[in-house]
Amino acid sequence: MIKEFIEKNEPRMLEELFSLIRIPSVSAQPEHKDDMVRCAEQWKKLLLAAGVDKAEVMPSNGNPIVYGEKMVDPQAKTVLIYGHYDVMPAEPFELWNTEPFEPVVKDGILWARGADDDKGQSFIQAKAFEYLVSNNLLKHNIKFILEGEEEVGSPSLGAFCEQHKELLKSDIILVSDTSMLSAELPSLTTGLRGLAYWQIELTGPNHDLHSGHFGGAVANPINVLCKLLADVTNEDGRIQVPGFYDDVDDIPEEERKMVAEIPFDLEKYKKSIDVEELFGEKGYSTIERNGFRPSFDICGIWGGYTGEGSKTVIPSKAYAKISCRLVPHQEHEKISQLVVDYFKKVAPKTVKIDIQPLHGGEAYVCPITLPAYKAAERAFEKVFGKRPLPVRRGGSIGIISTFEKTLGIKTVLMGFGLESDAIHSPNENFPIDMFRKGVETVVNFHLEYDKE
Amino acid sequence: MIKEFIEKNEPRMLEELFSLIRIPSVSAQPEHKDDMVRCAEQWKKLLLAAGVDKAEVMPSNGNPIVYGEKMVDPQAKTVLIYGHYDVMPAEPFELWNTEPFEPVVKDGILWARGADDDKGQSFIQAKAFEYLVSNNLLKHNIKFILEGEEEVGSPSLGAFCEQHKELLKSDIILVSDTSMLSAELPSLTTGLRGLAYWQIELTGPNHDLHSGHFGGAVANPINVLCKLLADVTNEDGRIQVPGFYDDVDDIPEEERKMVAEIPFDLEKYKKSIDVEELFGEKGYSTIERNGFRPSFDICGIWGGYTGEGSKTVIPSKAYAKISCRLVPHQEHEKISQLVVDYFKKVAPKTVKIDIQPLHGGEAYVCPITLPAYKAAERAFEKVFGKRPLPVRRGGSIGIISTFEKTLGIKTVLMGFGLESDAIHSPNENFPIDMFRKGVETVVNFHLEYDKE
Repeated sequence: MIKEFIEKNEPRMLEELFSLIRIPSVSAQPEHKDDMVRCAEQWKKLLLAAGVDKAEVMPSNGNPIVYGEKMVDPQAKTVLIYGHYDVMPAEPFELWNTEPFEPVVKDGILWARGADDDKGQSFIQAKAFEYLVSNNLLKHNIKFILEGEEEVGSPSLGAFCEQHKELLKSDIILVSDTSMLSAELPSLTTGLRGLAYWQIELTGPNHDLHSGHFGGAVANPINVLCKLLADVTNEDGRIQVPGFYDDVDDIPEEERKMVAEIPFDLEKYKKSIDVEELFGEKGYSTIERNGFRPSFDICGIWGGYTGEGSKTVIPSKAYAKISCRLVPHQEHEKISQLVVDYFKKVAPKTVKIDIQPLHGGEAYVCPITLPAYKAAERAFEKVFGKRPLPVRRGGSIGIISTFEKTLGIKTVLMGFGLESDAIHSPNENFPIDMFRKGVETVVNFHLEYDKE
Repeated sequence: MIKEFIEKNEPRMLEELFSLIRIPSVSAQPEHKDDMVRCAEQWKKLLLAAGVDKAEVMPSNGNPIVYGEKMVDPQAKTVLIYGHYDVMPAEPFELWNTEPFEPVVKDGILWARGADDDKGQSFIQAKAFEYLVSNNLLKHNIKFILEGEEEVGSPSLGAFCEQHKELLKSDIILVSDTSMLSAELPSLTTGLRGLAYWQIELTGPNHDLHSGHFGGAVANPINVLCKLLADVTNEDGRIQVPGFYDDVDDIPEEERKMVAEIPFDLEKYKKSIDVEELFGEKGYSTIERNGFRPSFDICGIWGGYTGEGSKTVIPSKAYAKISCRLVPHQEHEKISQLVVDYFKKVAPKTVKIDIQPLHGGEAYVCPITLPAYKAAERAFEKVFGKRPLPVRRGGSIGIISTFEKTLGIKTVLMGFGLESDAIHSPNENFPIDMFRKGVETVVNFHLEYDKE
């Protein structure tokens, strides 16, 4: 019956999803300020159409937050569904095969920025809800909250939660913003890494210098920046910032065993990204490295002459954007400060350094004994034919740990993304079939949850 | 009399110079191809107006070359004047206080790209020549050659010289494309460093990856690039490429003594570029470092997300433009290959590396016993009131060593630039007074040269 519902309504549902995708709600870029409001309003419209009793675009300290609810029984349990309507910047545009903000379906795959993260996945939740409401199958209350700043670290949602504790009161939070091991290997995310992010600006000479007249005698800020960044990790891939690992737990032996049992094809993994060799912290497997261990990545770097041909210059400035993924018990604010202190200490006097934390969030762990987790497990098994594996994923949804801290509510992460979805990258995509299976799985979650 | 000539003709002469500056002849940027031809044609016009018998815009393998000559006596000596009509890119535009290609004179200073390097300085030669011709003072032959590819390493001029040995036959080459220690401290450049320049492209994964899902498990090409570039020099500022110093001579003790006698205010130097500390190869003074020793500079670097805010990404690619200044006996082609081999060898298998040499040139030394050098020395003394110091400068004019190799002719470098001219940088400028003194000095050179 749910299958028929999806089949019958798919063209209309896709058009609704497209209406969200066509709004370039890029939270990192101030020029899209108006698009954020437009996207929030569009979500409000779609929630009302899907069957909520009321929906509102509410102000926050930053981009507005969409709230909607369907209260069927004050005595019943309440599920709070969280998603985000903002997306990552689409740059570099030239690497896209289609227009990032004009959705295209080709061979059963939807191509667009936000197709998966998180417009496509949030929309799964809305459509499962619509099915339950329209078929009178909803036995518990549902609340929706959609924010517009997830991709920049949710700077306003924490305060919003503090201010609206009563409004957001619920028994469990449900989120579709993660991925599965593969379409054939269903999994539920039981852990997320935290994040800290900084921007560094080095200033050497107060203006660009001729590299002939000054080269060899004046420290070049790009040379210095490369050295500083190279020194953050040692040859074993260990981060050298003092105190960085202080709160990092060893992976328990039994968990390492479970991880080792996850079917994982290293050769296929390398082939999928076309690299000959992998690199990571010594002593850990790939899955451990990106799920259980912190990391250090330079997300962007620039300085000097980057145009065509050659220009012989010692630039005045050099810049980098750097980030660390964090693991449970690493507080992002503490790590943020450790890294700032470290760079200020090691930067040589030949340059001036400015380092600014941009955003951060804590890691999160979901116990697999949670009733809602068990309901999700059964829902996945029903639709995908296999019991989903519990896995820790390397990504960060900072707000999940904020929910726990502020509202005291645990979150179940029912993600339908695939590695091939290229989220945050050019040519982001989402298979229509995963959308269908997603709706079916979420419907089953709600039905199973009522049994717990 | 020469002073009166300059005073009387200055407005006209400046307008002529402006007509060159207003053509954005940026050789590194292909979109300026037509401007190169326009600038060459304008030079031809100005040479004819200045008094050459004939002038021609001649084809080369790249941008055209302007040739002009005034033959007064086949038995007399011939001075070949070399200059270049191309300029460096003006980026970053936002740091200019005026339009780079719209000359502005303010408080006796001319502001524009090319004001000094090398439109302003070459023009000094043309105007000194005009004075001599119009006053019947020219006793030797003059040839002019102006190329349009100096700022990209003169890739076509070598072949042009080979093809036109007879046309370019002369006794000495005169070039105004260098600078003096200061307006009060006249100097003649007796040495130039060579140059080698490369572009590096590192490819990690075949597309940008989510730094949460992959961070810690996949080598980030920016991290790798920083490490590779940081490792090129050690903590003593020594370049670690095997064989790099093989052909570098120790500085002779007597030359070190001469260098030590050059009045040089380290505090003033640091203040002029606003740095607290300098850095360079251990065991050498600042003047030795930028005149007698090779250097390694990263002239540009880019990769990943460089827009506003934060984007968590492991980019697929990372790029750098790097260069080395070379010293006498270091062959740029040999060094170029050593560096390519080095990077290919040390690059880890986690990335693919592509490194392309962009251009290069040899170093040059001018003996201070040369008759033309002595004539230049007397000319400077007459105008600036002090005997000019012979100094080695860190910059490169690759073609000077090519002239020596191909044509067998030595060059005297009569440069009128000042450190404050900001060549290759935003707000390039040239004091009008240096232009006046330059014309006067070059006139005196020709008169003195006839006495040798």
